[in-house]
Amino acid sequence: MCRWLAYSGSPVLIEDLLYKPKHSLIVQSMHATLGVEPTNGDGFGLGWYGDRETPGLFRSTEPAWNDRNLRDVAAQMTSPCVLAHIRASTGTAVQATNCHPFRHGRWLWMHNGLINSFRPVKRDLMLAVDPSLYADVEGSTDSEVLFYLALSFGLEDDAPAAVARAIGLVEATGRDHGEPFPMQGTIATTDGETVYAFRYSSEVRSRSLFRSADVSALRAQYPDNPLLDELSDASRLVVSEPLGDLRGAWREVPESTCVVIRDGAEELRPFIPIAPAPVPIPGQASGSREVVG
Amino acid sequence: MCRWLAYSGSPVLIEDLLYKPKHSLIVQSMHATLGVEPTNGDGFGLGWYGDRETPGLFRSTEPAWNDRNLRDVAAQMTSPCVLAHIRASTGTAVQATNCHPFRHGRWLWMHNGLINSFRPVKRDLMLAVDPSLYADVEGSTDSEVLFYLALSFGLEDDAPAAVARAIGLVEATGRDHGEPFPMQGTIATTDGETVYAFRYSSEVRSRSLFRSADVSALRAQYPDNPLLDELSDASRLVVSEPLGDLRGAWREVPESTCVVIRDGAEELRPFIPIAPAPVPIPGQASGSREVVG
Amino acid sequence: MCRWLAYSGSPVLIEDLLYKPKHSLIVQSMHATLGVEPTNGDGFGLGWYGDRETPGLFRSTEPAWNDRNLRDVAAQMTSPCVLAHIRASTGTAVQATNCHPFRHGRWLWMHNGLINSFRPVKRDLMLAVDPSLYADVEGSTDSEVLFYLALSFGLEDDAPAAVARAIGLVEATGRDHGEPFPMQGTIATTDGETVYAFRYSSEVRSRSLFRSADVSALRAQYPDNPLLDELSDASRLVVSEPLGDLRGAWREVPESTCVVIRDGAEELRPFIPIAPAPVPIPGQASGSREVVG
Amino acid sequence: MCRWLAYSGSPVLIEDLLYKPKHSLIVQSMHATLGVEPTNGDGFGLGWYGDRETPGLFRSTEPAWNDRNLRDVAAQMTSPCVLAHIRASTGTAVQATNCHPFRHGRWLWMHNGLINSFRPVKRDLMLAVDPSLYADVEGSTDSEVLFYLALSFGLEDDAPAAVARAIGLVEATGRDHGEPFPMQGTIATTDGETVYAFRYSSEVRSRSLFRSADVSALRAQYPDNPLLDELSDASRLVVSEPLGDLRGAWREVPESTCVVIRDGAEELRPFIPIAPAPVPIPGQASGSREVVG
Repeated sequence: MCRWLAYSGSPVLIEDLLYKPKHSLIVQSMHATLGVEPTNGDGFGLGWYGDRETPGLFRSTEPAWNDRNLRDVAAQMTSPCVLAHIRASTGTAVQATNCHPFRHGRWLWMHNGLINSFRPVKRDLMLAVDPSLYADVEGSTDSEVLFYLALSFGLEDDAPAAVARAIGLVEATGRDHGEPFPMQGTIATTDGETVYAFRYSSEVRSRSLFRSADVSALRAQYPDNPLLDELSDASRLVVSEPLGDLRGAWREVPESTCVVIRDGAEELRPFIPIAPAPVPIPGQASGSREVVG
Repeated sequence: MCRWLAYSGSPVLIEDLLYKPKHSLIVQSMHATLGVEPTNGDGFGLGWYGDRETPGLFRSTEPAWNDRNLRDVAAQMTSPCVLAHIRASTGTAVQATNCHPFRHGRWLWMHNGLINSFRPVKRDLMLAVDPSLYADVEGSTDSEVLFYLALSFGLEDDAPAAVARAIGLVEATGRDHGEPFPMQGTIATTDGETVYAFRYSSEVRSRSLFRSADVSALRAQYPDNPLLDELSDASRLVVSEPLGDLRGAWREVPESTCVVIRDGAEELRPFIPIAPAPVPIPGQASGSREVVG
Repeated sequence: MCRWLAYSGSPVLIEDLLYKPKHSLIVQSMHATLGVEPTNGDGFGLGWYGDRETPGLFRSTEPAWNDRNLRDVAAQMTSPCVLAHIRASTGTAVQATNCHPFRHGRWLWMHNGLINSFRPVKRDLMLAVDPSLYADVEGSTDSEVLFYLALSFGLEDDAPAAVARAIGLVEATGRDHGEPFPMQGTIATTDGETVYAFRYSSEVRSRSLFRSADVSALRAQYPDNPLLDELSDASRLVVSEPLGDLRGAWREVPESTCVVIRDGAEELRPFIPIAPAPVPIPGQASGSREVVG
Repeated sequence: MCRWLAYSGSPVLIEDLLYKPKHSLIVQSMHATLGVEPTNGDGFGLGWYGDRETPGLFRSTEPAWNDRNLRDVAAQMTSPCVLAHIRASTGTAVQATNCHPFRHGRWLWMHNGLINSFRPVKRDLMLAVDPSLYADVEGSTDSEVLFYLALSFGLEDDAPAAVARAIGLVEATGRDHGEPFPMQGTIATTDGETVYAFRYSSEVRSRSLFRSADVSALRAQYPDNPLLDELSDASRLVVSEPLGDLRGAWREVPESTCVVIRDGAEELRPFIPIAPAPVPIPGQASGSREVVG
């Protein structure tokens, strides 16, 4: 299990995002309340967009709660688009290359959940990664493989479709190996301009996901909340669990949904995986495959 | 808060001690049940006695639950005397020199608890450390200062008396600074032959501490328990919280008690701090000081 | 570049192997003299055989020269078969899963050198790994891929032949991608009973490799050397560079050679890679392929 | 031994400072040329001034040469005042709290060199630290003690005088303990507005120190150098060793000198330690003490 936070809006001090809220992501690293486990101590990652073409990335295997470098970097850096993640390993090694977000060019990716029965399908999934990207996979997690599948399927051109195809392949491959519910989790990905968040699981019992309510309405409701003061009306947050108990501040993202945030506008779309065409994957015996969705 | 385990007895595979029990110390690193916090993820330490004069020491800032090196070292090493500790920092830096056990010559020391209001008294306490030992203090914790106070007061010659004097000084100094309950915690220390465990707090509400029951009686009671099979009758454990729910296996150590284990014999003694003689500490304005106990 | 040491013989204190020699592996971590770079500070690894079926493994990203845990573990552990490695990354991440030795069951593997032009051939090489082993590859190095190729080709049954086939595949695949000299380096692998060491490079300019001379002869020559005193006549070392300047103590392993050490006997065999049969690798366009050797 | 760099001037991308020069500080972490040792792999630190009252601080025990987080933070951050340091431990633990720069309020401090015979004088020096600052010393280095001595002697009010008094005390105390040359090294300290750099050693054979030449003159001389293009005329660098071989770009700082940089102006002053008044240090037997300088 993991927890994550995605922010898009007016430039915000990262410290305000990560540390200030009552039930902040840093608090959740030791005391998550909606997850399978309260502890997310197997490392963390922070991705942010600044003046450079490539977003910044800071990942470490230390628990987030006591990491002084994270605190200092967060205290000095503002950004209009931030992804942050705290990790609870589901078995793979605790190392920075297994920490989220993952980065490729301008794109960041993070995931809470898992590919069930990942081990037996890992090779088949990696064969579906574009050969030119194969050697870029640095870690050993299911989440990074999912990212590279999405990149191979056109993430940079049409993110929702690419993710639908990636998850469709995961489901088809998993079911070929006898796993009834291959996919579980929530995903956030961005190029720094549009944030896409997904909530989906094969068994339709997905990890929790929430989005922030309209900031201007909240500000009227809570005139004394300093964090709200600093946010523009266009600011949006998507989070694994609410960062506080402000009534009305958080709305659950429905099952099988893709949230698209751009220029302060938010759109919710149904999310349906796209099954692969029934052709054999190279290096694997061909077999019939059900179309999902 | 922290959790610890001290073992004395027949040579035991360290893995059996740390990983095999149902509610093992490694499980407690993420799911302690009797402590202030369930998570003890700010590093760990393992001390063990082998063929060398000096005990082995393996300390790391990674959480114990996923540390592969700890698992491998534990799987290869047997020892008749083992101290293990998982840390939850009360504010000082997460670094190996702040992880327990601490070592000096043949002696190891570990502590669960804290010196309340440590910051204002740290200098006075350090001034009471023997000048020849002063530069050996490598970390920044209260627990290590306590160790060096005990060493300064004769730990190697009469451990219970030295600990009583160290804690007596902590109490006197703390009260001089207005702290009503300066000392809190449980301590284990050993030279590899005798294990001393202490449960004491100024407010008489000490951190939990348990000792194992007689192994031969337990073995009769639980004939199928493999861990018990491997232990000699002389084996003894003292732990922050029970390693399982075997009925009768664990007895609480009373408040204000020192447990002495040597050659398979266990003795419980009342523990009373020894206040310092009413002389001024160098470098500090003199003042009247109450005698404790 | 990296440096390594393989020991087989009477049980030896690991500290004596790693720290005592004048030009020890630990000294080489900062001051290697025969390598491309003097510094091997991108982590280290220690593998050793004890009483368990599985060898112990201790790997870390810290430079070896100041690692206190390595020093303590080495000071407490004796073993009749030890592999140790200090790493200088050729580009892949500094993480424990990229540190040598790698372990699979009873087998350990370490490598000094590289697969030239690894990036474009990585996918093809990974496709040749036995599918049941594919998900066991945890890191991102060329050296680990080489290990899993050897395992796929029968390392556990006939180590020299399996390594010859692995390197033969590396050479064929590399040349298909236009790399004239795909393989470079020295390798050590063992199951704890037989140690195999290889010196080979496609351009016949391999990384340095030395083996210890006959201990009994050396002992006669240097009666005052304490390390020699402690070693049995059956003890053998293979090292990237000599551990000292004892005249006559170290003999260079010739190019294109496999050293086999078992029960104190040492055999040198010519080493010739075995090219793959001229069938297409799955997932790759077929092409003519020269037979090597 | 260590290496460091101090920058003051127009806001600069930290990556340009740390990575771009031919013989950059990152290159020096593995290949220093003017130091006692070429390797500075025992951690690093970066301090920089941004919009906050407190400067940012990023310190790690990993060698700088392969640290990805350092590279990313440096690539995203600009600052008008930067201190960076790479460490080669002279014996104390490799831990972040022993990495430079050290921070207190708005002040940063870093040091290349050592207090000779530090161990026997550490207690006496720590007793001279202002009691209110005593518990802020987190690490175990001589360099941090020196910083706290300077703070205790008025660093924030008159930095050169405070450093002169701190070093004067170090020299007096060391000589009391029989050390003829107590102080060695170069120091940089700043509040973000004025940078002070010191080159001094008791034996007048100090660690190397260089300052950048006038940027406008250099720019005329090297019209194609992109780094020079980006720097304002007011930009100044002080470094342990030159960052490249541009002729005329670097001028050695003389022995026993303090460099003061403020608003683009640079001043060189003679630096003479100020011996303590001949009163006994608390907790130490009094003794005659020579006045230094």
